[in-house]
Amino acid sequence: MVRIPTFEEIQIAHERIKPYIHHTPVFTSETINRLTKSQVFFKCENFQKVGAFKMRGAANAVLSLTSAEKQNGVATHSSGNHAQALALAAKQSNIQAYIVMPESAPQIKRKAVLDYGATVINCAPTLSARELALNEVVKETGAVFIHPYDNVAVIAGQATALIEFHNSIPDLDIIMCPVGGGGLISGTALAASYLYPTAKIIGGEPKGADDAFNSLRAGKIINIKDPLTIADGLLATVGPITFNIIQKYVHQIITVEEEEIIDAMRLVWERMKIIIEPSAAVPVAALLKDMGKFSGLKVGIIISGGNVDLDNLPFLKS
Amino acid sequence: MVRIPTFEEIQIAHERIKPYIHHTPVFTSETINRLTKSQVFFKCENFQKVGAFKMRGAANAVLSLTSAEKQNGVATHSSGNHAQALALAAKQSNIQAYIVMPESAPQIKRKAVLDYGATVINCAPTLSARELALNEVVKETGAVFIHPYDNVAVIAGQATALIEFHNSIPDLDIIMCPVGGGGLISGTALAASYLYPTAKIIGGEPKGADDAFNSLRAGKIINIKDPLTIADGLLATVGPITFNIIQKYVHQIITVEEEEIIDAMRLVWERMKIIIEPSAAVPVAALLKDMGKFSGLKVGIIISGGNVDLDNLPFLKS
Repeated sequence: MVRIPTFEEIQIAHERIKPYIHHTPVFTSETINRLTKSQVFFKCENFQKVGAFKMRGAANAVLSLTSAEKQNGVATHSSGNHAQALALAAKQSNIQAYIVMPESAPQIKRKAVLDYGATVINCAPTLSARELALNEVVKETGAVFIHPYDNVAVIAGQATALIEFHNSIPDLDIIMCPVGGGGLISGTALAASYLYPTAKIIGGEPKGADDAFNSLRAGKIINIKDPLTIADGLLATVGPITFNIIQKYVHQIITVEEEEIIDAMRLVWERMKIIIEPSAAVPVAALLKDMGKFSGLKVGIIISGGNVDLDNLPFLKS
Repeated sequence: MVRIPTFEEIQIAHERIKPYIHHTPVFTSETINRLTKSQVFFKCENFQKVGAFKMRGAANAVLSLTSAEKQNGVATHSSGNHAQALALAAKQSNIQAYIVMPESAPQIKRKAVLDYGATVINCAPTLSARELALNEVVKETGAVFIHPYDNVAVIAGQATALIEFHNSIPDLDIIMCPVGGGGLISGTALAASYLYPTAKIIGGEPKGADDAFNSLRAGKIINIKDPLTIADGLLATVGPITFNIIQKYVHQIITVEEEEIIDAMRLVWERMKIIIEPSAAVPVAALLKDMGKFSGLKVGIIISGGNVDLDNLPFLKS
């Protein structure tokens, strides 16, 4: 039986991390409203510190540690936004972070983590190599492992975006966000059950990494053998805690094709003039699929992040 | 002797256009603050309607017309943001817009103007062909010519961004914006003389189109024979009205190289997660030149627009 964060824990998390995160703005787009016949509100976590909502969970996890736990620092394995978020959160608390990264990770991401003063441990680009390297680091240093998503403090942290969203737009009918490992959607759905009890919570997931979609249907966690999608933040599989929450509180998962992700990303860049990463475009693609399905409704979308490799943009390849 | 808008005209313009424009947000960047040792505030007109500050001037010009003048519509020659802005402003007032565009203008820009219901008149891609085509249109239709920048109502409209900026950040020491034909900087400098009487007003101009820099030095308008810059919104030469105001109220023009423009644009995209066009990056490049020259000061930059061709990004060419 896994433990689920309470609403009070989410509220405490929000107060706790407030000085360490940005209060991100809510944007709208007349074009997208017109296309979808809905009123769509975008909570822009691409403007969050380190460029992604991951900062919320990492900050809450680090700030929740006892002084004794903090002493030996924190560790994780990630080549993505959680790596940078944990490195910055550790720096903010003056503790050490150990980040296990696959050798294949882009140099720019390694540099960002190093710039925050974290120690980077290289490993082969396989899950087993990552886990082995992480276990060794934890054994050697005594650092606390902060899982990228299947962690109660991390989930409570990710849930805080919805508290801010609710303060701005208190009457959403639909709430959408991407599904990767499930940290954001489980926190969001959990917070929504208190803040928007009548709203429908919908996840967007790439067809190439549709573990949550399949798991929900099967009633148990289904691993995808070789997930492949341009939405590189959504390759992970839901965990025991996040899946438990998703089963209870998420109403639907809409899967989208790669081309739909790229088109949605381009539409947001061109019309809203904001930079969103492919993973963040996934719920937008889910919204744009079957235009008008939310006709007349107020839709809230959490834009998860804005970290893209400008030298390697997807819409320039076709 | 040219006429200069009064501060009252600028205030009236702001009230007049308010229902037709967006109140754009002010953004900050910890990275840019750290790099420049200043506090920098960005007034984001890339989020303005049609993606550029030009909407303010066009809206004010159209809304200032008498009913008799409105009857035959408005006309201009432009392949850039003014074309779209005038087309939308005309649509908002239910009048016809005639836009003379060079045949060489990108299809996407022509389409945007047509989508607003404007009539597009094609011409050869030379200034004389443009002017000839415009004169013919005005003669045939009786439409009122709205000059892209050398027009008192347009300048008063562009000046309104600074009123909003002042409402958010009332104590700027330095105010920067790009210089093309001079509509934005003349309106800004004029408004600043009332709102920020002690602030220093600085224009950023590409070296490849440094007519304002040379004109200021010469004390008269100097045309550049073949201006060439990636900042395609800044190719125009200052006009009699804008130059008169620039001479009186602008303290300095800093010129920048193409590479500096591209680097500044990329820095803003990567760190601030907002899409700005090359012209908007010019004052940012001017700020980043000689880092620390505004050490300890509050700097306000007007981000002029966010219309870029995503298939043709400058930092992917080197």
